[in-house]
Amino acid sequence: MNKDQLKAWKEKRRKRKQSLNHNDLLKAILAGDVGALSSGITLLESNRIEDKKTARKLVTSCLPYSGKSVRLGITGVPGVGKSTFIESFGQVVVEKGHKLAVLAVDPSSEISGGSILGDKTRMTQLSVLENAFIRPSAAGKSLGGVARKTRESIILCEAAGYDFILIETVGVGQSETMVHSMVDFFMLLMLSGAGDELQGIKRGIMEMADCLVITKADGDNKQKAQRARKEYEGAMHLFPPNENGWVAKAMIASSLENYNIEKAYHIVQEYVNHTQENKFFQQNRRKQNRYWLHETISDTLLLNFYSADHLKEEITKIEEQVVSGQLSPFDGAELLLELYYKGR
Amino acid sequence: MNKDQLKAWKEKRRKRKQSLNHNDLLKAILAGDVGALSSGITLLESNRIEDKKTARKLVTSCLPYSGKSVRLGITGVPGVGKSTFIESFGQVVVEKGHKLAVLAVDPSSEISGGSILGDKTRMTQLSVLENAFIRPSAAGKSLGGVARKTRESIILCEAAGYDFILIETVGVGQSETMVHSMVDFFMLLMLSGAGDELQGIKRGIMEMADCLVITKADGDNKQKAQRARKEYEGAMHLFPPNENGWVAKAMIASSLENYNIEKAYHIVQEYVNHTQENKFFQQNRRKQNRYWLHETISDTLLLNFYSADHLKEEITKIEEQVVSGQLSPFDGAELLLELYYKGR
Repeated sequence: MNKDQLKAWKEKRRKRKQSLNHNDLLKAILAGDVGALSSGITLLESNRIEDKKTARKLVTSCLPYSGKSVRLGITGVPGVGKSTFIESFGQVVVEKGHKLAVLAVDPSSEISGGSILGDKTRMTQLSVLENAFIRPSAAGKSLGGVARKTRESIILCEAAGYDFILIETVGVGQSETMVHSMVDFFMLLMLSGAGDELQGIKRGIMEMADCLVITKADGDNKQKAQRARKEYEGAMHLFPPNENGWVAKAMIASSLENYNIEKAYHIVQEYVNHTQENKFFQQNRRKQNRYWLHETISDTLLLNFYSADHLKEEITKIEEQVVSGQLSPFDGAELLLELYYKGR
Repeated sequence: MNKDQLKAWKEKRRKRKQSLNHNDLLKAILAGDVGALSSGITLLESNRIEDKKTARKLVTSCLPYSGKSVRLGITGVPGVGKSTFIESFGQVVVEKGHKLAVLAVDPSSEISGGSILGDKTRMTQLSVLENAFIRPSAAGKSLGGVARKTRESIILCEAAGYDFILIETVGVGQSETMVHSMVDFFMLLMLSGAGDELQGIKRGIMEMADCLVITKADGDNKQKAQRARKEYEGAMHLFPPNENGWVAKAMIASSLENYNIEKAYHIVQEYVNHTQENKFFQQNRRKQNRYWLHETISDTLLLNFYSADHLKEEITKIEEQVVSGQLSPFDGAELLLELYYKGR
């Protein structure tokens, strides 16, 4: 889909959305209407004030119907084979009787022109399945904005009857921490290779993973992947244990040869059973709700501080003095805060 | 030192401090007077308004004389042998011609009665050395407060001519993240054992470490420690590389047999040389200055929000609705923020 097609598509959605009021839209979403779901998500992405109000109402109305799904985050650097893996994995999920929604998160896409969006057209086999819904990247200027859109899209998808939500992210910025805080299970895709595969993956992401999948384990690559798997399994064994008692798994897979894709599905199921049994599953969701409440409050307070007109020059000046060691950071902060509260 | 002795000691310091004005204190600190340095740090810990002003002035005056040291963070769970390691390691540092200051950070100490404070009395060999200054725990009600006190204590120690600052922390809470953000080098002490050694260590700390030391590698334990070292070395090799090009080291040591203690010193030196050569050392310090400026701003904004009287009940109410899934976290945040700004 090129930019013009995308624009036309967005325009079509916008018109469709305008013709529906909140109640009609809600009814249609709850009935599983794909067009209505798309319109609903477009509404979440709109920046117009009246749309925001409708969106807020829609999400609140959908909340009682949400939550009954498995939320899965998948990340990995570009080139790891995310879209082909999701294509194969998604088909297994649908075959097992689920309704699958795939959402892509790519905060960089407004700048890059949408690196994940392109993947949508590549998932040709998955996108034609009746029980699969693929939604291109929720873009936005701020990570906070993208987080809200994505999380509320999950609510709408769940209300529309999707019981397996897959959230794809790039794995190179901050987006994976964000996605990790809105999913039940976090999967990290990696390539085998001599250390190089880690270039680009941010430190700390490995410890977030509930399952590590070495991709492209086919042909000559299979043995290398198997060796890498063993190494990672050993390494993960050394990590501090998860509070939920789950020991992160490491496995190899090939989307090309459709090898071990079903195994990945079973690992997710095993995790869900394990954490539902020990109550972590629901506890974690409650914890995530609380997290997003406080995260949004914190984001907004900071945004208001750093965008205060009477402060902008002072912030730059004081930051320079602090960075160069002329002023203590704590004194610098006190000075700026005094100024901020005075000027409000 | 029991509680009564501690109280008496604090009272003595307070009296001594009161008899010195800012200029005298500064001069004495710059001349390396240990009593003045102690008084200065006590001043930083005081909550009296006039003391705070003097402390602020003192830190600003010391800033130009600070920075010329190696700042080392050491963490590990209780029982890992931190104080005996620091005792041996500290002696090596002093033998090498450094002036060493040991500061302990233990935000829990006000509740626990000072778990690290007790260690001071155990470092009998180190504490008698002329070029070693050991300061008991900087306690406080908030992590932010402890951070400020510790970081400003570093400044005073450096101004007093200490060129090797060692910051000890417990490794079980959030304090190690805080300490990591104020040191040049971060050392994690661990016990060998079959996975159990990780109980209590928070996830993510391992990836922070520039060097991992398996302690108590003596007698029957030595072989086990060596095996653990190899495993950790392999695991750390799998971590994403550090931005500074340093590959974290893993080593074994015994404070009892004084084995490999000097090696730990050499690793620190190697790191300092490496990062001074590639400019990371100074860049990181500038980055840390900036971090503490923004961290303090963020802490204060949040503290003011969450302690706003007109909000307290509402926060509890809305949090409950959000956690139970009746209200979207983003809507909940919007409601609270509206209320906050209205009531100010």
